[in-house]
Amino acid sequence: MAQAVVTEGISLNNPLFRIYAFYCAVLVLKMMFMSVFTGMKRFQTKTFANPEDTILHKVKVTHTDAVERVRRAHLNDVENIPIFLITSLVYILTNPSYFLATTLIRAYTLARITHTAVYAVVVVPQPARALAWLAGFAITGYMAVQNLLYFLS
Amino acid sequence: MAQAVVTEGISLNNPLFRIYAFYCAVLVLKMMFMSVFTGMKRFQTKTFANPEDTILHKVKVTHTDAVERVRRAHLNDVENIPIFLITSLVYILTNPSYFLATTLIRAYTLARITHTAVYAVVVVPQPARALAWLAGFAITGYMAVQNLLYFLS
Amino acid sequence: MAQAVVTEGISLNNPLFRIYAFYCAVLVLKMMFMSVFTGMKRFQTKTFANPEDTILHKVKVTHTDAVERVRRAHLNDVENIPIFLITSLVYILTNPSYFLATTLIRAYTLARITHTAVYAVVVVPQPARALAWLAGFAITGYMAVQNLLYFLS
Repeated sequence: MAQAVVTEGISLNNPLFRIYAFYCAVLVLKMMFMSVFTGMKRFQTKTFANPEDTILHKVKVTHTDAVERVRRAHLNDVENIPIFLITSLVYILTNPSYFLATTLIRAYTLARITHTAVYAVVVVPQPARALAWLAGFAITGYMAVQNLLYFLS
Repeated sequence: MAQAVVTEGISLNNPLFRIYAFYCAVLVLKMMFMSVFTGMKRFQTKTFANPEDTILHKVKVTHTDAVERVRRAHLNDVENIPIFLITSLVYILTNPSYFLATTLIRAYTLARITHTAVYAVVVVPQPARALAWLAGFAITGYMAVQNLLYFLS
Repeated sequence: MAQAVVTEGISLNNPLFRIYAFYCAVLVLKMMFMSVFTGMKRFQTKTFANPEDTILHKVKVTHTDAVERVRRAHLNDVENIPIFLITSLVYILTNPSYFLATTLIRAYTLARITHTAVYAVVVVPQPARALAWLAGFAITGYMAVQNLLYFLS
């Protein structure tokens, strides 16, 4: 009984939590990359959002498509990744199949990295971005519905 | 003692965690609906944010009020719901009254669904949206202050 | 063994969790302040985002720099704070040095409060905001990389 508690839940001894924690770090670092990428695009195109940022460069506050595209990709991460991280944390506590849960977490991470790659790094024609987004969306939705049904009873 | 550990904390045997997990799933699904709703509005009004999205529809990248309204409602969720999910997870660990905690979590969920309904589905005159927003804001604030005082000592 | 479980993990008996929970509440309240601050700026400058908000004030929907600046600071919080709260929760479970973990969580909180102060309350010339942002970014990045390495093995 005591051992059952230790190998389940939010614990270093729970192999599913270890998988979660690893991919959580990957997804957070991927999101952090968006901030750096936005900054790179801002300096490349001399596009700044605040007057105090423009002094060194003597340019006006403006908008460019290159920066706005990276920002839209970042906002899409902000809309999707934090709720996935919370939903999947609850999901791994519902005793799902180890294989299924691991596959879903890995597939989600891959889908979000692909989403950024085809949205903001190299613009790939649709439906590349739509499919990458849909894969992540469907996985979060599946986990949320599973949690809903599990805790309804 | 071992039983006390099992029925508290982030555990399937903690009834408050089960309530949290259920409404967490409801709130996440509600937020995910905003993405679908934005997409629906984009196709209805042929309003797309990226050139590669417009090819099938042969329209220019543009903005419309209908899409921007849904996006503002979604952004309001993004600003509020993830911090509520983290704050309420900590709050249920502070041994609050079961009745109070359950009522607050349910009221928050209802307030946020109402917020979207009166903001983006049917535009209801103010103060409908302001009150729905305030209810959710006050609940998050109450829990955060309770957590602050609990862990200050 | 039973005691080891109790003083580690997400538990009221884990001193690192208590530190986390306290500063989590501070950061959430700090983020909530941004919503109030935006509202104050909207009424001061009579700048409203929705037609239904403008009836009492008989003004048009518009944008002003003062409101947009607070909104940019808020969005920066939304991009950074939720992923820090999840990353640092995982980080404190990896048995880090108590002193280091506590210092990093406190420094992050201070950096984010400074970020808002120099961005949206009083506009301080760069690199004030860049440094405040970088401090928070570096701390989240350090924790995420530590988690990555810890759970890789």
